[in-house]
Formats: sequence, structure tokens, C-alpha cells
Amino acid sequence: MAKKPNILFIMADQLRADYLGCNGHPTIRTPNIDALAARGVNFTRAYCQAPVCGPSRMSFYTGRYASSHGASYNNVPLRVDERTLGDYLRPEGYRVALVGKTHMRRDVEGMQRLGVDPDSSRGVLISECGFEPYERDDGLHPDQSVNPDLRYNEYLRSQGYESHNPWHDFANSAEGDDGEVLSGWSMRNCHLPARVREEDSETAYTTRRAMDFISESEGEPWCLHLSYIKPHWPYMAPAPYHELYGVDDVLPAARSKQELEQPHPVVGAFMKHPESESFARDEVRERVIPAYMGLITQLDDHIGRLMAFLEARGELDNTLVVLTSDHGDYLGDHWLGEKELFHEASVAVPMIVVDPSTTADATRGQRSERLVEAIDLVPTFVDYAGGGEFDHILEGRSLKSVIEGASPTEWRRYAFSECDYAWRPARLELGLAPDQANAWMVTDGRWKYVHYEHFQPQLFDLAHDPDELNDLGNDEEHRTICRAMEEALYQWCRERKSRITVRNSQVSAATGSAHKRGYLFGIW
Amino acid sequence: MAKKPNILFIMADQLRADYLGCNGHPTIRTPNIDALAARGVNFTRAYCQAPVCGPSRMSFYTGRYASSHGASYNNVPLRVDERTLGDYLRPEGYRVALVGKTHMRRDVEGMQRLGVDPDSSRGVLISECGFEPYERDDGLHPDQSVNPDLRYNEYLRSQGYESHNPWHDFANSAEGDDGEVLSGWSMRNCHLPARVREEDSETAYTTRRAMDFISESEGEPWCLHLSYIKPHWPYMAPAPYHELYGVDDVLPAARSKQELEQPHPVVGAFMKHPESESFARDEVRERVIPAYMGLITQLDDHIGRLMAFLEARGELDNTLVVLTSDHGDYLGDHWLGEKELFHEASVAVPMIVVDPSTTADATRGQRSERLVEAIDLVPTFVDYAGGGEFDHILEGRSLKSVIEGASPTEWRRYAFSECDYAWRPARLELGLAPDQANAWMVTDGRWKYVHYEHFQPQLFDLAHDPDELNDLGNDEEHRTICRAMEEALYQWCRERKSRITVRNSQVSAATGSAHKRGYLFGIW
Repeated sequence: MAKKPNILFIMADQLRADYLGCNGHPTIRTPNIDALAARGVNFTRAYCQAPVCGPSRMSFYTGRYASSHGASYNNVPLRVDERTLGDYLRPEGYRVALVGKTHMRRDVEGMQRLGVDPDSSRGVLISECGFEPYERDDGLHPDQSVNPDLRYNEYLRSQGYESHNPWHDFANSAEGDDGEVLSGWSMRNCHLPARVREEDSETAYTTRRAMDFISESEGEPWCLHLSYIKPHWPYMAPAPYHELYGVDDVLPAARSKQELEQPHPVVGAFMKHPESESFARDEVRERVIPAYMGLITQLDDHIGRLMAFLEARGELDNTLVVLTSDHGDYLGDHWLGEKELFHEASVAVPMIVVDPSTTADATRGQRSERLVEAIDLVPTFVDYAGGGEFDHILEGRSLKSVIEGASPTEWRRYAFSECDYAWRPARLELGLAPDQANAWMVTDGRWKYVHYEHFQPQLFDLAHDPDELNDLGNDEEHRTICRAMEEALYQWCRERKSRITVRNSQVSAATGSAHKRGYLFGIW
Repeated sequence: MAKKPNILFIMADQLRADYLGCNGHPTIRTPNIDALAARGVNFTRAYCQAPVCGPSRMSFYTGRYASSHGASYNNVPLRVDERTLGDYLRPEGYRVALVGKTHMRRDVEGMQRLGVDPDSSRGVLISECGFEPYERDDGLHPDQSVNPDLRYNEYLRSQGYESHNPWHDFANSAEGDDGEVLSGWSMRNCHLPARVREEDSETAYTTRRAMDFISESEGEPWCLHLSYIKPHWPYMAPAPYHELYGVDDVLPAARSKQELEQPHPVVGAFMKHPESESFARDEVRERVIPAYMGLITQLDDHIGRLMAFLEARGELDNTLVVLTSDHGDYLGDHWLGEKELFHEASVAVPMIVVDPSTTADATRGQRSERLVEAIDLVPTFVDYAGGGEFDHILEGRSLKSVIEGASPTEWRRYAFSECDYAWRPARLELGLAPDQANAWMVTDGRWKYVHYEHFQPQLFDLAHDPDELNDLGNDEEHRTICRAMEEALYQWCRERKSRITVRNSQVSAATGSAHKRGYLFGIW
């Protein structure tokens, strides 16, 4: 790639890493994503920095851990002076835009304090996490708070779907025998087709909007964050995807009787959440998982369409493509629903990076077991864009050299993820204050250790117990491992980057220079 | 105090806690500061959060630890969205101003990114650490970078002190027998009187400017940060203070041969700094320390003058007075000069709080051995001003209840301080990169433990070895203590407050509310 590559940064929402053909799912069909893996590098040990939308995405967009950027949960505003992807790429000549979801909540108090007008062009960028909001849609629109100007609803109405909230009534609901709306909020309806034609569904619409953006962006390099809301709930797939999969495709839940009967206190509190109680039931899994898989295959089809579109425009050879997800989905594994905790179902993410240039030919189609984190994408993109020195802020590391075939021996030994469950009923169940509900995961690829504030830890041997059914956190024999993992976490805590207003090269240049500048202290 | 109290927040620079009469110095005369201690509470175990001007002050002004606010060393800009004292007190109706030093460096990049005009009233406050810069003067003005508009220089010229830089040539230099300027940058000249009349010295001038401010501020509550540059070097005292003290007043240095011969690697690297090599020599100590003490007694006289001024105006009974310092001064203890490391000479600070209201009568004149930190002042001031809920940002705790006679049993068990010596020659001596030169102190009052990144720790028994001459960090018998201190530091790391855009009460109100807001996930 002689000129600066375009960057197509595709994120699915709540897509489990193991629900892809290229990642070993036995029956799901994802030929287009598999084709990406065949063209690029498939990082099979990739972790998000917090297994819940908001904080995970803020880590993806800032290149920093959740406890560094501070937006530790959904709807926690990202403080106004955290840099995001756009701050790094725009100076390199990129148009940096969003189609889809970010879960960004702007820091209203911070903006007011600094006098940033939210309607100014600067204020919009700050509010939108650094992205030009070509089309922002966070994808969850309950009737009581639906934005009357939601563009997707306007689109649906223009196609004849008339209601107060067609997002809900058509795109995310089914229809009963008597024409009644069967809401997608209720998982009992997930086996039915959505009330929209496939081409009007969120995934199809979002893909078209991405194409609109790409068509409009000739002549300058672009970075498009194409951020699909699916396969996140409501788990409503349009026909024919609603019936592509059946009960036979539902893998047994990774869970044990012992987990249920003697749960870790925090995990046990999460098991009492409604979503966990639902997914503990086989009938729920049997109805939801086929729909979830259908949504994934639909997404895959649209990715295929998009790649064909890029190819037809002659842009495929100049576009770096990333496919990832913000976190996974328990789907009943470990008697849990949703995400937030640190089992692989929740914290592992797909991470496929396709560099079409010849310099990456050596790794084409490789699977890499290097530990990779969500925060690696910003440094990777900056690296491809030819950007400057930001290692005083960014906590991830560029994957570019690995993609180009290097085998750096100095790689991270551990990956980390964080959980702030202050907003969840589990916190109340456990009697914790809002600032006490924290947990941290550290893994070296073999062992996974979870430090729960105020509770005993968990330890899993991923090599011999890949389903994470056997908690060794209390096991005398593994005390040394636990201590080593605590030590790694402690060191990580000390290394968080907060000195973000001075570059390391500036520090180097200034070291020992006080006397040169005339501050003659300590001389006789 | 029926109405909101004024707050007079006095800081000396580089004033050792033990160089006050009320703190046990055998010969120094500080009757006015001693009188403050007799009128208030003298916290005798107070620690700064970083024993160097910039980061210490940023902790004093933000109420947050250095690794939370990020301005870890002198001239590291405070990130633009860190709240400071003014942000908390101004909404309570206070005029919040500065006379003297802050060592604040504004975050130019952050301001540019957010479009904050540095010349706007908002931009000035952001640039000046939240203080109205009634008179900002950081007090160190080498000839090569002296601000041509420095007000103190203008004042000196108006008094007949003519030169390019009267700050240096008169206020911080002496005069030789032939009328030549003997620079105060050279400590060999510290026994001589400064070339200014006492009433024109920095300390006198600064006090008068404080009086100007107070005279101007009738009718609204004010918070004045009166921030003296002295007794910080250049150690030049005006007559008669230059000769108040002599060699007999110089206490023996707290240092041992063993420290010199087998130093801790980091301490040893600091011993090679010019200031340490100077202060290792008795002739330097014997010339500097009397001047240092003279500057303190001069400061004390001006504090007495200021109290009399407040009393004459009838404001003494409505003014909370704090006297503290940003850090200490080694003065040759442990073969070191300056500050930065964690021996008591460097990290302990005086902390006297006078609450004149009757509600504080019970503690008048008390000495308190509670562990107190610099970050406690912002919450204390907010508490006195009647301010709101900021425990999601502030990391200190209000001293008000203690000053009013309560004995909270839940108090902090440990105090912490931090050191980032990336800018010092010691880092190069030790072969470290700019982001590797960190150390942390933790003390429970009895034990003081220092964690050095990449080097062995230090441990001192403050009860049996108050001079900290016997490093137990490598001592087998004290391994359990060391481990407990590491555990305390580890916990502290995990508790740093980065989720600063949401109040804890907002978290409580929102906990478990997603369903109420229409997000019906996980239901059947």
C-alpha cells in the first residue's frame, strides 16, 4: 500500500469469539468472515478490556484500559479530555467516521466547565467519541425513550412500516397469528421472523449506510467504524435467517452442577439476575441460540456484500479490514446470561485483521495465539496511518509488525480485563457500596485468574479445563500460581498511564537539564 | 461561624515539618506559627503526596493522588479536565485566589483540542489551577528566562533596585566587599544578607499582596492561597534574618556511614546529584541551614503580621487558617540534598489547621497523630464551605469532624506518597527509561515502606529508628511486614478514582433500573 490505507474497523455487538466457522463452531456458517481470516491474521486469544458495551468500546476507541479512561460502565461519560481514535488519525489526513453504535455518553459537566459547545463541530466530535457521526445508532430504542428523529425509524416509515416506534414494532418484533405485535424484548418470540423484510433490517440498513459513506469518501483516506448492533439482543432475525438454525445447532451449555450449587459469591449473585435465570432454562437457549446464530450468518452475508462492494470499487487492496466484537454472550454457559464476568464466553472477542498489502503476505491465513487486547487497535491504526509518538497515552501495542511477519520476542505476558458491576443488582445482593463492586481478570493464556474485591479469587486452567468449570482459586496446590497472577495484576496497576500530558521523548530531552536552564540548585 | 468562613490556605515551600518550634526544633523561633498550633490542631503525621513541588501541589489543589491527577513531576501539565479547589468553592460563593506560587503548568495541547482560549476568563482559571491569579509568582527566575513583566521585579525597580533581573541581583544575591553581586544560586554566599531591605524581600512583598487581596475582598467569602516561595532555595535571607542563627543551631545530620557505603541503589544514585554532594559537606550545611532557619523565622514574623492584620479587621474569628508546606528539604540528612525521596525530612509536612469557631474549641491546641495527607485539604475546605458530593473524585477526607472533636474510628490506616524521578540524572545513572523511574511510599505511622520499581524495597521502623538509618527492607525477620505493606499499596492502587464523571449517588439511583427504563433484556 503506497498511499495511506483506508481502515474499515468492523465491530459486531455481543458476538462470541467461538461463534464463527473459522474459530471452530461446528455448524455456524460464516464463509465471508472465514474468508477474512484466510486473507489476514486471526488472533485467537483476543480479549476485550471490560466485557460490557460501554467500557469495552471506550477502551477500543481510546487504546487505554478501563481504569485509565475511567468510563467503567455503560453510560459513564468519557471524560472530555480523553483522546480517541479520531484525535490520532485526523492529523494524518483521515476522515474518521461512524456508522452504527459507540455507546458513547458525552461528559456534559466537563464540556460545560470548559465551555465546549456541544453543537459546534468540535463539540460534536467530543460528544461522538471522536467520530464524525455519519450515522450514529446505538440500536436499543425502548418505546418510552425512542428518539423521534431516529433515522432508522424514518427509513422504516419511508418503507411503509408505520408506528410510533418501528424499530421495536417491526425490526425487533414478530407478528402473531392475528397480526398482533410479539415483542422481541421477550425471548419466547425469538424463533419467529422479525416483521421487516431482510433488506430493511438493522444489519442490512447499516451495511448500506457504510457503502454510502465509502462512496462519498473518495480522494482522502478514511477510517470507518462500522459498528453493527447485532447479534446483540433483541434476538430477532428477519426471514430467512430466523430459521437457518435449529435445536440441533445448540451446543450444550458449558456449565456444571457444582457451579450452580457452590457458586463463587459474585458469580452466584449474577446467577440471580433475570437474564441468568432465563438462560439457565433449556427452552430459552433452544429458542435464542438459533436466532443468535441466524443474526451472525446474516451479518456474515452483509460483510460478504461489503467486501464485494470494496472490490468492485478497486478499494479492497488499499483497505485494512478489522473484524471484532465488543464482548461475547454467556447464552447460558455457567448458568449466566448476558456478559460482564470473565469466562471466555463473555470476555474473549474475535479479532481478525486483514492487511491486503504485499508486506503482509507472509502471514496471510495465519492463526496467532499471541495475547491480544482491544486496546491494540488504536496503536495499530496509528501505526498504519504513519502517526506519531503516543506511547505516553496508549496502553496497547501495534499489531502491524506481527501482521507483517515479525515475531517479537518481547510481547505482553498477560492480558487484562475489568468489571465494575456497581449498576447491577448483584452489587445490592452482595451488600456493596457503589465504589466497591470491582473485579479484574488477568490471564497468561494458560491460567486465568480473577481478583474480586472483597471476595475470594477464581483461577482456571485454560489448557486442561477450557470450559472453565473447575475453579482452583481456593486450591492449596495452586497457591503459587495465584500469587504470581496477583503479582502480575499488581504490576499492571502500577503501570497504568496517567502522565499523559508529556511525551516520553520530551522527558528524555529534559532529563537533567534544570541547570542548563539556569536553575542552579545545590551548587556551592 | 454563622456565615461561610474565609479560608486562608498558607503554604510555605520546602519547609520541613520539624523546623518549627511547635514541632520540636530546639532553637528555631517560630512563635507565630506556634501560636497557630496553640489555637488549632497540629497534625504531626502529615504527608505530602509527592515530595517535589509540582506534583505535591497538584495533589493539594485537586484532592487527588499524583497517579490519579497525572501531573507526576514539575512542569508536567495538569490535564485540562482535572477539577481543582476553585471548581469546588466558587459555586459556594467563594472568591478563590492566589498570591504566590502554584507550579501549575497549563495543558496547552488539551486546551487547544477543546478550544479553550487561554486568555478568556475561563482559560485563565484553567491555566492557573483554578485560582484567580491575584498575583502569581513561582519564585524562581533565572536571568535567561526571566519574565520581563514579572511584577515583583517591577516592584523592586520602583524601589530603586535597578537591573535586568532584580529578583536575582538584589532579592536573591548578596554583595561583595567591592559592591559585586554574589549570587544566591551559589550556596557559599548564603551566610550573607540579601541585597534587599527586609520589607522588599519576597516574603514581605508576598504578605503585603495577601493583605491587598483581603482588603479588596469584603462582603463575599474568600479562599486565599497564600503560597510563599521561601524557605525554598536560593537560601538568601535579608538582614537581620541572615544572622539570627549560627553554626550552633545546625543539628547533626541524620545520616550514617553505612548509608553512604552501602546505599540503596536509587538512594545511591540520588547521592550523586550535585545537591547531595554539596550537602554531604559540613561547610555547606553550616552555611545553608542558618540561612534556611532565618528565612523560616522571617516567614513566621510575617504570619504574625498577617494574623494581627486579620484581627484588626475583625476577620480572625471568621477565617479558617491552614499552614502547611509542599514538602521538606533533606539539608544533608541521609547524604542527600533537596527532596523527592521519602525520608521524613522530605515527605513529612507541617499541617496546622485553625478553626476559630466555638465548635472547634474542644481541640484547640491539640496535637493529632492521625495520618493526614495533603489531599485532605480540598475535602476539608469543601466541607467547611458547605459543598456537595464529590467523593467520586476526591481521594482525601475532610478533617473537619476531627477538628470539631470527633474521634472517627474508621480512619485511613495508611498514608501514601509517590515519586517519578524520570527527569533526574539518577534515572540515567540507573539505566531506566522515562516511564520506569517510579517509587511509592506507604506508612502506617509505625512502619515506612518504599516500593522502588526495578529495585529492592526499603523498610524503616519509625518507632525505634525515627532517623530512618536502619533499612530493614532486605531483612528476613521483617518479611511479613513488608508483605503487608505491599498488600496495602496494591489495594491502594486498585482504589484509585478514575470513574470521575458519575457521582456515587447517581450510581445508586440507577442500580438495577435498566428494566424500568424499558431495556427488557433477559426476559422470557
